[in-house]
Amino acid sequence: MSSPRLEIIPIPGLPEIVPGDDLAGLIIEACQSSLAESSEQLQDHDVLVVSQKVVSKAENKLEQVDPDDPLSHKPLVLRESVRVVRRRGELIISETKHGYICANAGIDRSNMAPGVAALLPDDSDRSAIRIRDAIAGRLGVEVGIIVADTFGRPWRRGLTDIALGCAGIMPILDLRGTDDAVGRELHVTEVCIVDELAGAAELVRGKSDGIAVALIRGVDPAWFGPGGVVTDVVRSPAEDLFR
Amino acid sequence: MSSPRLEIIPIPGLPEIVPGDDLAGLIIEACQSSLAESSEQLQDHDVLVVSQKVVSKAENKLEQVDPDDPLSHKPLVLRESVRVVRRRGELIISETKHGYICANAGIDRSNMAPGVAALLPDDSDRSAIRIRDAIAGRLGVEVGIIVADTFGRPWRRGLTDIALGCAGIMPILDLRGTDDAVGRELHVTEVCIVDELAGAAELVRGKSDGIAVALIRGVDPAWFGPGGVVTDVVRSPAEDLFR
Repeated sequence: MSSPRLEIIPIPGLPEIVPGDDLAGLIIEACQSSLAESSEQLQDHDVLVVSQKVVSKAENKLEQVDPDDPLSHKPLVLRESVRVVRRRGELIISETKHGYICANAGIDRSNMAPGVAALLPDDSDRSAIRIRDAIAGRLGVEVGIIVADTFGRPWRRGLTDIALGCAGIMPILDLRGTDDAVGRELHVTEVCIVDELAGAAELVRGKSDGIAVALIRGVDPAWFGPGGVVTDVVRSPAEDLFR
Repeated sequence: MSSPRLEIIPIPGLPEIVPGDDLAGLIIEACQSSLAESSEQLQDHDVLVVSQKVVSKAENKLEQVDPDDPLSHKPLVLRESVRVVRRRGELIISETKHGYICANAGIDRSNMAPGVAALLPDDSDRSAIRIRDAIAGRLGVEVGIIVADTFGRPWRRGLTDIALGCAGIMPILDLRGTDDAVGRELHVTEVCIVDELAGAAELVRGKSDGIAVALIRGVDPAWFGPGGVVTDVVRSPAEDLFR
């Protein structure tokens, strides 16, 4: 059995995004221009991983903060949070109103004009659906969309990209009940493929290159289907041992 | 600027590993046979992601357990742990003697013969170094090696693959001090590339296909260097807010 390869393709060329921009249209243009260099085009079952930052800019999730005060966005962090989970010095780990648990409620001033902070999209799954539907409508191509952000995590140093929202691709692959290689039943092997795909995309996007989009080609067509990150990945407080 | 693509290539063909096997030699054979189909071969700056399970088998980190009792490995979980972090019913989240925090001390009975449980390698960074050095010695090719396992995480459902150990590739990419796209200094952007690479590899390895190795091609040569997971990624208790 020869399994297919995955290709992780950086898509440069997205212009600086401003509120009201047609983000899906600009992503299509960047993909077409970038893929044309290798005589390729967007196709069914491609997955596009889009940085949260450009989604927030297009959706005008921007707030003015004091450019000279590196802590001036902290009141926004509390406003965007429903509960502080841990606090050490200026670091606030909180549960956001969307349900994510992360530092500073996902509010970010890097790669932003001075005095501007980007908040998370109101509904990143919905943002992903809009981009997916726009691409399906304009190109007739069915892709998966992941809106990705960079989060820390307990117990391990370093950040990784994870999915804030998704559309068209199932967030969790449920391998429970599939036979393992020696023929017995696998127990509780639910793989969060959208987080793994978001992390893979980060590897070609980089942080300082301003590449907001990556295309992942070769994803198993069986992985495309319904589901969202907030409903399927964010753990409910009742089943969470760590808050 | 056109960034290079990453390719994630499954490497099937590793035989069932038994204690004492020359794992590096078998990985080389599987790579050569698999890559030969597309007239390729292992090259400098390839990264090989190897499942913890085959490393544990080769290193004889196996224990007999009662095949009829699904909980018979629980005493091993406590033996391999230095501290229980959370417990709910039969689920034990603990800090292992290596420093990882995970369920069941990483002990696993899936894809194993009945009555056998696989423990984590004693030193996964060392295991990675041995494989890396063997490949360098036999082929003259300098690759990065990641030993990967599947862990859960707080707050988010689904599992992802992470790095237990690495060699030849830097575990954390320190982007602090690099200018971001608008020219100001990035703060605290340390990306755990070995975890993102491990997760990317999982996407082609699957859980039930028995593909224990994936090759990642196209990684930035600047990312190759010293470091290990236990020293560089595992967070010290003093800086950890969640134990």
